[in-house]
Order: sequence, then C-alpha cells, then structure tokens
Amino acid sequence: MPAYPAWSVRRYVYSTVSLPPELRSVLGQYAEVVEAGTSGAVLDPEKVEVLLCGPVVAEELDKMRNLRLIQCVYAGVDGLPWGHIRNDVVVASNAGSNADAVAEHAFALLLAAAKRVAFFDSRMKRGVFDITGESRMLYGRRILVLGLGAIGRRVAEIARAFKMRVTGYARSRRGDEPVEELHLEGELDKALSGADYAVISLPLNKHTKGLITYQRLSLMSRQGILVNIGRAPIVVREDILRFLRENPTFTYATDVWWNPQNMREEMDLIALPNVVSTPWIAGAASSREVYQEMLRTAVENVVRYLKGERIQNVVRHEDYK
Amino acid sequence: MPAYPAWSVRRYVYSTVSLPPELRSVLGQYAEVVEAGTSGAVLDPEKVEVLLCGPVVAEELDKMRNLRLIQCVYAGVDGLPWGHIRNDVVVASNAGSNADAVAEHAFALLLAAAKRVAFFDSRMKRGVFDITGESRMLYGRRILVLGLGAIGRRVAEIARAFKMRVTGYARSRRGDEPVEELHLEGELDKALSGADYAVISLPLNKHTKGLITYQRLSLMSRQGILVNIGRAPIVVREDILRFLRENPTFTYATDVWWNPQNMREEMDLIALPNVVSTPWIAGAASSREVYQEMLRTAVENVVRYLKGERIQNVVRHEDYK
Repeated sequence: MPAYPAWSVRRYVYSTVSLPPELRSVLGQYAEVVEAGTSGAVLDPEKVEVLLCGPVVAEELDKMRNLRLIQCVYAGVDGLPWGHIRNDVVVASNAGSNADAVAEHAFALLLAAAKRVAFFDSRMKRGVFDITGESRMLYGRRILVLGLGAIGRRVAEIARAFKMRVTGYARSRRGDEPVEELHLEGELDKALSGADYAVISLPLNKHTKGLITYQRLSLMSRQGILVNIGRAPIVVREDILRFLRENPTFTYATDVWWNPQNMREEMDLIALPNVVSTPWIAGAASSREVYQEMLRTAVENVVRYLKGERIQNVVRHEDYK
Repeated sequence: MPAYPAWSVRRYVYSTVSLPPELRSVLGQYAEVVEAGTSGAVLDPEKVEVLLCGPVVAEELDKMRNLRLIQCVYAGVDGLPWGHIRNDVVVASNAGSNADAVAEHAFALLLAAAKRVAFFDSRMKRGVFDITGESRMLYGRRILVLGLGAIGRRVAEIARAFKMRVTGYARSRRGDEPVEELHLEGELDKALSGADYAVISLPLNKHTKGLITYQRLSLMSRQGILVNIGRAPIVVREDILRFLRENPTFTYATDVWWNPQNMREEMDLIALPNVVSTPWIAGAASSREVYQEMLRTAVENVVRYLKGERIQNVVRHEDYK
C-alpha cells in the first residue's frame, strides 16, 4: 500500500525506463508509478503528472494533457521531441548524474590520443613493434574546456592535477570555475586560439549546434587534440572530416556520433588514422553502475517535485525550441 | 676555449649519448667533453672521470680506472653492467627526469583498460559497433601505487584528482606521501589485498625483481587492472601469463617488457584480449621533448659533481650487486 494518505488525490508518475524495486518504492511513497511496457500497466495518459524518461514517443506525449514535469534519465535533453512539449511543462535534465564517468572517459580519450595507446596496442597485437612518431605531453599544455557544467568542471579539475594550463568557455560566469582563464559566449575564437587540446562538454542546443567549424578548428595547434564527450552535432561533420584529412598531426578523439543508429555512415571518419573512437559509452551505455546512479538521481529529483521542493537541472525551453 | 683556468688539471667527461650543443657548452665550462662515436674523438679511458651514459660496454668500463662518477641518462640504472662497476664509483640515476611523462602514460594505460578504448577503437576501425562488456570507474576505487619515487608520487597525486582511494607501497616512510594509507616493505600482501588497481613504479633491483607473483596477483580484485610502467621483471612472467589466462576480467596494461630486444617472444602475452600494450615509450623513446629534458637533468647533475656540490639520485651499489 502506498504511504500517502487515502484522501489525497492520486498522482501518477509514468516511466519509460525500468526502475529497480528500491527506486520504485521510494517514488511509491509519493505517487503511483507505472512503467511503460509492464504487463497490465495501462494508464490513462491524461492522468500522467510526471514523465520519467528515457526514450519518449511524441504521440504519447501529445496525449498527456495534464503533464507537469518531464524528468530525463539522460544528462542531455536534446533527444526530447521539443515540438510536442508545452511551454508550461517543466523539463529537467539529469546533468551531473554521470559527470565522474564522462570526465574519466574524456581523459581516457585525450590520453589515448596523446600517448597513442590504441595505435600501438593494435599494431602490437598484429606483431608490429617498432616505435614511430611522437607522443605528446599533457604537462604544461593549454587545454580548453568547452562548457563548465558538472562534467566540464571535473575535466578542468583533473586537468589541473596533470599540471595543464586550463582555459574555460562558458555561457556565463559563476565565479568559482576551476580554470586559469574564462571566456564567455562570443569569445570562442579567442578561447580556441593556440589551444593544444580542447574537450567538448557542452549540451547540444540551438546555441551550440555547429559551433565547431573548419575555421575554428584552424585556430588550434596543428598538433592538437579535440575530445568530444558532449554531442556530435556541436561539431560540423564535413568540417572536422576535411580538417583531419588536411592535418594528419591533429587528432579527433570522440565518444559521440552524428548517426548513432547507423554507425556505418561514420566509417569515413572512424577509418582515419588520426581519429580515436568509442561507441557512445562514456555515460550509462557500458556501465550498469553509472546507469543505476543516473536512475537514482533522476528519481531523487522527481521526489523533490512531488514533495513540493525546488527541483534541480530545470532547462530553458527557449534553448531547445 | 674552455672557461676553466689553464693551470687546472684537465677533467674529462665521456658521454655515450649525443648531447645538444647548449648542453655540451654547459659541461664545457667545467671539463673536456668527449662523445662516443664522434669522429676524431679518441680519449684514453684512464682519463675518464665522469661517464655520462646511455648504453655502456662492460669492457670499456673496465678500462676506466680513474672513473669517479657514472651518471645515467635513463631513470633506471638496472641496465648497467654492475659486475664491472667498482664500489668506489658513485652511480647516479636520472630518477624524476621523466616523471610527468611516465605518470601520464600510467593513466593512459589505466584508462585505456578501464574504459576499453583500445578494444573499442580497433573494433570500430574494423566496422564493428556493438557495445559489449562493462567499463570501469576510477572514482571511488582503491589504487595501490608501488614505489613512491617521483613517478609514483605523481601517479598518486593524479589518482587523488580522480577521487580514487590511494594506497602506497614504499621502502621507507618520508612523511609527505600523497596517499591515504602507506604500506612499507614486508607488507606487500596486505597492500595488494582487495586493491582494484595497481601501478608499478618501482626501480628494478634485487629487492623488487620477481615481486609480483601469481599468489600476489590473486590478492587483487578479479576485475582489477595492473599497470606496469616500471620494469617488466618486477612481475614474474609465467605468473602474470597464467593469471591473465585464468582471469579474463583482470587486465594487465604495460609499457615495459621482459624481452625488449625480441618482442616476438612477448606475443603470447600481447595477444591476450585482457592485455593493453605499448612498446616501452612512456619515457624518452617516443618524445624528443622528454629525452631533451632527461639529458638536461643528467648534465645538471654532472655539473653539480664537477663544481663539488652534492649530487642527486645517488643509488646504493648493494641494491644492484
């Protein structure tokens, strides 16, 4: 039996992701929880007050006329069908929930590129042992962290432990950024100029889509490394492809893709010797532990809402519409 | 003309490595510098007071009857022909000269193993895109740093930035080790017990050879990662091979080898899916910048000796004989 009083109006949370029993029971103290695809779980869409998602079908969303909150399980909300979300619905991302995992992956990619671990490992497994080319140091190099949310801040903190010179690029100044130098929106060209390395840890929205162009890549060191653990479309695909072909000493190390549903279309990029690739696994996709933590923080935020407390990670509709 | 006074006894530095002009001229203020293999450079071995090396031939060493100092360019002195070095010759390593580079490489290997970057990159380059297996976090995990010299200390400092729990293993306590817990010689089993990750940053000498046995590997987490950026023979080769075959979830990530002159003999190990490999490049071998810095600090130490100052990195003969 739910813990909320019998006289209260029943509140409904509809989840498009499967929740572990302990999280269902936490939510169950404040609302009825219905999971999509659960046998026997039929819920009138008009009753849904909170949508906890995962993937969401636009047509289902249209029917949820009394929806008040969309809580994403993923850190980014760029995958939501924004054209179907009313302006009075509060949308919360799950930013920060996987920040440690993704920041670690950023350094896995940066170091794999700088020390050419994937290159040498695959050669050695083929029986080729000669030492060729130059490794790169992190120590003393200038790294630009694009986006200083939870992930970007962790990246900056770890970069400092590697004794790198850390520059940040952010939408606005908070005052406690762990960087030596901070560039605000509109100063991206200046921020990129002469940077040895850059890490993209920005959300994908209408302000960041296509931000990294051929022209801007040209501002970085020719021995540079661009790490993308944000979203692929922040980089103009044809621009990075051309830049990498023209600059074999520049490396693109990425976990994110333009066509994740059809990775064959990415082969032109993946096949380049100056690309280091992982298949979008930095966050939840290859770690049960990280995914469980993401579910936990998403449910925690829904509980805040249900208790009438201030919720976290509310995003601005105008950034996505 | 050398800057030392004409009335002084000529002192001779014999170098088996080629020095850049600026370092030759620094040394030239205090001594005559002769480089091996330089045309016209014939030097009576009995005149050699300081040997700056690089590789060294035992028979040449035997003839240097007035030798006072051997200054290694490499961080480790395990490659010297110790049986040919008199007890009254001071031997200095170049420990610390490449500490940042090697500590960075340790994290490149640890993260490549934890996030399986080499695995995924080579699969994707072959057109295989599915996500399989589990990535591992660094955050919150216990890492044992074996050896707290300059490299080990940097590894420990960086590990703390990743919010790992850091345990150290060292010969003696200095008091300022950047670790949560320190185990001294004789407590290795305790130090390894339950460790998630371990990094070998010990010198190779008679105290450390064969330190890591099958029995000791069994004390670590079965999802563990052992990183070796020290020297291969600190690990018993047949033991790690057997342990890796029996424990496919345990990873050995190594830059150092038992048979570097004949890498084909290492293929049984390299070919294992739970081995990540680089060909002994963490230090100087793939970075001109790192090698130049190593030459610089080695020459700096020789200058200290020639000026009558206290030199650094003096090693104990009894550790190697």
